[in-house]
Amino acid sequence: MSGNFGSDNVTGAHPAILDALVAANTGAAASYGADEVSTRLEARLAAVFEHEVTVFPVISGTAANSLALAQLCPPWGAILCETGAHVAVDECGAPTVFTGGGTLWTMDGEAGRLRPGDLRARLAGSRAGDQHQVQPAALTLTQATECGTVYTPAEVQALAEMAHGHGLGVHMDGARFANALVHLGCAPADVTWRAGVDVLSLGATKNGALMAEAVVFFDRAKAENFLYRRKRMGHLVSKMRFLSAQLEAWLADDLWLRLARQANACAARLAHGLGQRGLALEWPVEANEIFVRLPVALAEALEGAGFHFYAWGDPPTNGAPGLYRLVTAWNSTDVGIDAFLTTLDALRPAAA
Amino acid sequence: MSGNFGSDNVTGAHPAILDALVAANTGAAASYGADEVSTRLEARLAAVFEHEVTVFPVISGTAANSLALAQLCPPWGAILCETGAHVAVDECGAPTVFTGGGTLWTMDGEAGRLRPGDLRARLAGSRAGDQHQVQPAALTLTQATECGTVYTPAEVQALAEMAHGHGLGVHMDGARFANALVHLGCAPADVTWRAGVDVLSLGATKNGALMAEAVVFFDRAKAENFLYRRKRMGHLVSKMRFLSAQLEAWLADDLWLRLARQANACAARLAHGLGQRGLALEWPVEANEIFVRLPVALAEALEGAGFHFYAWGDPPTNGAPGLYRLVTAWNSTDVGIDAFLTTLDALRPAAA
Amino acid sequence: MSGNFGSDNVTGAHPAILDALVAANTGAAASYGADEVSTRLEARLAAVFEHEVTVFPVISGTAANSLALAQLCPPWGAILCETGAHVAVDECGAPTVFTGGGTLWTMDGEAGRLRPGDLRARLAGSRAGDQHQVQPAALTLTQATECGTVYTPAEVQALAEMAHGHGLGVHMDGARFANALVHLGCAPADVTWRAGVDVLSLGATKNGALMAEAVVFFDRAKAENFLYRRKRMGHLVSKMRFLSAQLEAWLADDLWLRLARQANACAARLAHGLGQRGLALEWPVEANEIFVRLPVALAEALEGAGFHFYAWGDPPTNGAPGLYRLVTAWNSTDVGIDAFLTTLDALRPAAA
Amino acid sequence: MSGNFGSDNVTGAHPAILDALVAANTGAAASYGADEVSTRLEARLAAVFEHEVTVFPVISGTAANSLALAQLCPPWGAILCETGAHVAVDECGAPTVFTGGGTLWTMDGEAGRLRPGDLRARLAGSRAGDQHQVQPAALTLTQATECGTVYTPAEVQALAEMAHGHGLGVHMDGARFANALVHLGCAPADVTWRAGVDVLSLGATKNGALMAEAVVFFDRAKAENFLYRRKRMGHLVSKMRFLSAQLEAWLADDLWLRLARQANACAARLAHGLGQRGLALEWPVEANEIFVRLPVALAEALEGAGFHFYAWGDPPTNGAPGLYRLVTAWNSTDVGIDAFLTTLDALRPAAA
Repeated sequence: MSGNFGSDNVTGAHPAILDALVAANTGAAASYGADEVSTRLEARLAAVFEHEVTVFPVISGTAANSLALAQLCPPWGAILCETGAHVAVDECGAPTVFTGGGTLWTMDGEAGRLRPGDLRARLAGSRAGDQHQVQPAALTLTQATECGTVYTPAEVQALAEMAHGHGLGVHMDGARFANALVHLGCAPADVTWRAGVDVLSLGATKNGALMAEAVVFFDRAKAENFLYRRKRMGHLVSKMRFLSAQLEAWLADDLWLRLARQANACAARLAHGLGQRGLALEWPVEANEIFVRLPVALAEALEGAGFHFYAWGDPPTNGAPGLYRLVTAWNSTDVGIDAFLTTLDALRPAAA
Repeated sequence: MSGNFGSDNVTGAHPAILDALVAANTGAAASYGADEVSTRLEARLAAVFEHEVTVFPVISGTAANSLALAQLCPPWGAILCETGAHVAVDECGAPTVFTGGGTLWTMDGEAGRLRPGDLRARLAGSRAGDQHQVQPAALTLTQATECGTVYTPAEVQALAEMAHGHGLGVHMDGARFANALVHLGCAPADVTWRAGVDVLSLGATKNGALMAEAVVFFDRAKAENFLYRRKRMGHLVSKMRFLSAQLEAWLADDLWLRLARQANACAARLAHGLGQRGLALEWPVEANEIFVRLPVALAEALEGAGFHFYAWGDPPTNGAPGLYRLVTAWNSTDVGIDAFLTTLDALRPAAA
Repeated sequence: MSGNFGSDNVTGAHPAILDALVAANTGAAASYGADEVSTRLEARLAAVFEHEVTVFPVISGTAANSLALAQLCPPWGAILCETGAHVAVDECGAPTVFTGGGTLWTMDGEAGRLRPGDLRARLAGSRAGDQHQVQPAALTLTQATECGTVYTPAEVQALAEMAHGHGLGVHMDGARFANALVHLGCAPADVTWRAGVDVLSLGATKNGALMAEAVVFFDRAKAENFLYRRKRMGHLVSKMRFLSAQLEAWLADDLWLRLARQANACAARLAHGLGQRGLALEWPVEANEIFVRLPVALAEALEGAGFHFYAWGDPPTNGAPGLYRLVTAWNSTDVGIDAFLTTLDALRPAAA
Repeated sequence: MSGNFGSDNVTGAHPAILDALVAANTGAAASYGADEVSTRLEARLAAVFEHEVTVFPVISGTAANSLALAQLCPPWGAILCETGAHVAVDECGAPTVFTGGGTLWTMDGEAGRLRPGDLRARLAGSRAGDQHQVQPAALTLTQATECGTVYTPAEVQALAEMAHGHGLGVHMDGARFANALVHLGCAPADVTWRAGVDVLSLGATKNGALMAEAVVFFDRAKAENFLYRRKRMGHLVSKMRFLSAQLEAWLADDLWLRLARQANACAARLAHGLGQRGLALEWPVEANEIFVRLPVALAEALEGAGFHFYAWGDPPTNGAPGLYRLVTAWNSTDVGIDAFLTTLDALRPAAA
């Protein structure tokens, strides 16, 4: 349904990715990642990132994030992240169990982005070597953020340097990495290893795959023993070619970037339309998520008209407008965006 | 490659299952299992098992087993299983981490099947209520077993009754459940809940799916809080329809049984051929795995001729024949089996 | 050293408690808590609290808190507490590991006490039943608080009712419970089970014991399986009589209350003296901790004169006075307090 | 009661150790191990073992073993031990939880001692680098063993070399280390670091202390981050001087060796007496444990006469004699042993 802005994970898969599954379904193949498709994938990602990489395909963003963070954070460690980060609020404690008991230290960001000053203060205030306290071990940045904003390479670098200076590893939750990348217009390397990222969760599921994410290590030493963690968490897929094939097709011919551009363009169109109508955007729309203030009655009327999206954060009080999140995706269309805006115009007088 | 008897997971997917993915790829769908395909799947499995069920599709057998066992076994509990069980030797300790620190108690079986007397003795010897010792909490039976044999309903029932009598829950690792079922020729219910099984890991991956297993609870109360465990282990798939669709197609028109019959028939043909040639089968061939003693030189010659299979257990000494495992699958063919036997005949004089 | 105000755990043990160890050291005694002293202890605590109780002596407050909380909070649960609570900042993540991966949700309190409105909002904002989020499971209140303040029975009751209304269990961290109790002047029952507390960590170590705390369950059902947890965490002491004897002597003849009164009286004397001198107390002094603003130079001069106490929180900037914590104990004396004040007077002109 | 042979933990504490507590109870002392007694203890143990050491006093053998093993074994690792080892059967899974999910691999020994051939085979049969299987990480030897026997330095060395050769760390569970040492008559170093032991759990509780064990690292690098593990497991004692003082007094003037000699001598006297009476000792009596076959009626009659000891292993069938364990301790006496034998003589005709 083109009117479903609930999440980018309500979409199906891009046909080219389904085709790749069919193509991979030929003959016998070594299991557990020793197949040819999986081997090619690592080389492909090395080319994409202009750097040697160690790659582990997995089936969910939660798995990718938690497996990656467990490589950086011991049981007595702390993972520093923004308050609204997916790892902190949407994974039911997964990083804690994967790290064997690690702790999340959250900091309120600005439009979803951590502020260097806050990170500096938090690191300065941690008691290094004090046995009574968990020890900062990893920084995780969400790119694009949960507010639909994007860190610039310079912003990533500033935070990563600070983290490295205190001995922390740096992870990037890239569930919407492609959306961030096309916004920035930079090379994948610029906003990852060149900016200090040690390991990336590269998400394809929200951007055209069925279920496929890649944990990409730029520092191979940090991948040591990953394979045991993956297996004991149940995340080693036996017919690995069917994961790798999704990722290979997604990267081929810049499909991932084209899909992300489409999602972002529709988000920009929607943001523009909302702005023209005097509706307040909560944060700049830099990727494929729009956060907008709407009168509650109008939001309900839009839902009644068949559009789907979520209320965000605490419910409004005293008749104030509510905050709503709309997400565009790789298969969003101008027609769909315009239909939403037209319906909104039609409903607005009655709802207001 | 038709000559790959390494495992049933070297095979691809059945075309009908790929077709189902394409069919499921229509429009937007609610994520996390609230979609229509997933809803239909639970009803379908209730019909298959003639019992109400609570169903959770996951992507690997290790995840299915460990998530199921975690529902039955507290951190201070013990899971009783056969020495060679997949949970004990092939999952890198997954049941331990999913249960929060549970322990596996292994018992040597007979051709992979636990003996009631051994279970009785082990339960009698456990010190119930003794705070110094982990407490037996779950019994897990592998069906078909790791030796390619099959428990009868009566055998399952005898063990399950004993387990229930001591307060244990009963799990069945059904990575090759379909292969066992067609061997038995009974109803799915007969060898599961009617025989005392509380929860089943129903495996489709080895039998025609890309990656799809279902955790099937016959006792819904035992499924409480499963959804939190699944999520925090990274096993909640956002585009769930793509897991459910595989399972739905696999069950439709008895595809799962037809595929298992094909695998079993090829295994029987291979076993018969090996027997005719005077080669010793280690255990009865009741499903799709053959364990055979071969002169090491012959095994190596077969590998050299392009066939693939694994040596099993400890390496032979003093020129004794080795033990080898060959696995047939849903796409094995009589032609492929005969080619193996013909090659074996050709190589045998030279190798001997 | 009477001038050590660093913590109440720098003190030794009260002679009566050492005498009790000697008295308990007679003949053989059943191990692991089946001895006579341990049996008597449970009866004694039932009398003290006017309620049946299940009691487990342990050797540290961290163990007591974490073992108690693990009974209330599943791996996917959240424990709600004040931001500065010992469980949150001084136990190196112990509650996380004991609960098998639970999460701490912190809320800023007022002088260390949680505000009902904040708890209400946090519970209202939690997404009950949402598999993506950890589920609130326990409330823990520190009595006396980390700010040296005390919850009244009515305050405990208001918070506990709210917690129970959402299905949470209620724990009290009573590392300084005796200090709180003598401040309140109420019965032990009034501020525990009568106010809705399900389980109490009752601390004796800071108040005259060598190392002894008791986990006291008022709801016996909530103690189920505690003995396995305790053992597997290494906290089952074999010669239990030596733990129980400390607690028994501590409770006998109201020794625990007398010692707490002495500590509190000295704290009050110190607070009064500081106030008289125009020095600002950060929070009301209701137990045995004093938080006071001192010029940094004065604090350093006092340290130089042989007094010991800790700077608290973030270091002051721009020449502002610093915040310091001084803790009195069961063996503090008026003479010691007056010596501190006299020295302060002597140093003050020079330091200012 | 001198007739209690149930365990060496039914005894109280040696008076010199209680005296040491009183002596340590002077003035204020820095908490958490920064006190003078704790500092002296590390130097003392370095002298005892003729090697630099890093020492952590804890309150139970389970804590000492599990904390030590967690330093050697990652969550995906296996700890190799004898089938009857305390860590395997008497700690309710503690090593599993402390290691974050490690696995115990047990091997049947000979009179409690692991055989080099079995260890060699087990290590050879492990699949190093195979992600499906837990990886051997630590060897733990119990000294004296659970059968009351003792490894010679050469035996320890042979096993430790094998373990080190496969990259495993070597731990010694020395709950009864002193008893083993006085049997061997060698230097403490000879049977620990000189023989390849990396870390020792040195037990004092069973040999005269109230509750005190020391984790002694001979390889300081292996102690890294131990302090965080100890704290988060609730095993950091605030008034550490009261743990350290026990250990210091226990080591002073060879008290630990004198107490162990007394226990061993009484065990030898008892073993000799039983042998003279034609009663079968199950294993050589080399420390302070005696395993003897007794007619069940005789054992019951002895219990009836006020002696206490435990039946061991599976109950006897068909009227065969049972196996019983008797443990002598630091405060056992010749008189007590003779009283037991005399009573046995008196009861034997009637019981037989």
